[in-house]
Amino acid sequence: MPLIQVVQTPGKTAEQKRELVRELTEAFVRSTGAKPESVWVTVNEVAADSWSVAGETLADRAAKA
Amino acid sequence: MPLIQVVQTPGKTAEQKRELVRELTEAFVRSTGAKPESVWVTVNEVAADSWSVAGETLADRAAKA
Amino acid sequence: MPLIQVVQTPGKTAEQKRELVRELTEAFVRSTGAKPESVWVTVNEVAADSWSVAGETLADRAAKA
Amino acid sequence: MPLIQVVQTPGKTAEQKRELVRELTEAFVRSTGAKPESVWVTVNEVAADSWSVAGETLADRAAKA
Amino acid sequence: MPLIQVVQTPGKTAEQKRELVRELTEAFVRSTGAKPESVWVTVNEVAADSWSVAGETLADRAAKA
Amino acid sequence: MPLIQVVQTPGKTAEQKRELVRELTEAFVRSTGAKPESVWVTVNEVAADSWSVAGETLADRAAKA
Repeated sequence: MPLIQVVQTPGKTAEQKRELVRELTEAFVRSTGAKPESVWVTVNEVAADSWSVAGETLADRAAKA
Repeated sequence: MPLIQVVQTPGKTAEQKRELVRELTEAFVRSTGAKPESVWVTVNEVAADSWSVAGETLADRAAKA
Repeated sequence: MPLIQVVQTPGKTAEQKRELVRELTEAFVRSTGAKPESVWVTVNEVAADSWSVAGETLADRAAKA
Repeated sequence: MPLIQVVQTPGKTAEQKRELVRELTEAFVRSTGAKPESVWVTVNEVAADSWSVAGETLADRAAKA
Repeated sequence: MPLIQVVQTPGKTAEQKRELVRELTEAFVRSTGAKPESVWVTVNEVAADSWSVAGETLADRAAKA
Repeated sequence: MPLIQVVQTPGKTAEQKRELVRELTEAFVRSTGAKPESVWVTVNEVAADSWSVAGETLADRAAKA
């Protein structure tokens, strides 16, 4: 029954997401012994202009980098 | 003050969402006695290529079905 | 695959939770045609001193009521 | 390490989001003494037809107002 | 209708939470013009042994600091 | 900046959580190339009487198993 909710910035391809959910599921199963069929992973995306660290959006931080 | 956050795959019409939030609110009120005005429901969508069970995306599982 | 995450204040009995998850699942199935086995419901609790409306905690609002 | 996840209806400009994440971070730092670099804010959007109060979507409530 | 879900480590007093939810609500209202009564804030706590950065729990990082 | 929010039933030891957050972080870094320091993992617990599948709590399902 474990649920793994990933939040990341956009830009991953379908293939990268495919690999990400597989790797996260395997990591969960390896470290807890859970059954693979019981593991759900969802991948949510939040744009760089809607995510901040220290009060500054990732978009603005990247523009200054 | 209850909050009901639904996460589902895309594809529901506005009319289906209208019925879903009404039904979920009524179900909550019936089983807890909460006041309807206090119940919030949000419906979030996660694409089939971003949701996995047993390490396999719903998109890939559907393609094999 | 739908996920219904409920957030409410503490105090519901195991029996009330039992009825709540059953009612919410049936409401979801009725309005979307989803298979019952595909529906997950989680019930999370947030204390009244950790939940606010209009900047005032539910605990303080209740104390004034 | 605090995480502030905002959920709101769409329509805010990039500038409004910039101000929102800055204000929320400053508010958090002021009231808890946390280090600004440790504060993450994410802003998620849920459409008015996917958000309900008292079983009625914000879209329908607005249409009647 | 905005919802602000805070996740932080335990240890804040009721008074600190009182101030936090008030400050976050005021910050939201100031930067978006939302009505205070429409703003919900919830404060969830995750223990230091259940929160990690760079794969290391906050508890272990603090023990080494 | 990726955020991995795990929701699982209680009962894991501190050591199991330590391994879980490490494994999930490594899995994320391997499949996306993200910097480890940018990856946050939180582990939330929901009791078996507050989590349901097909409208039946995990506690009741386990009692019948």
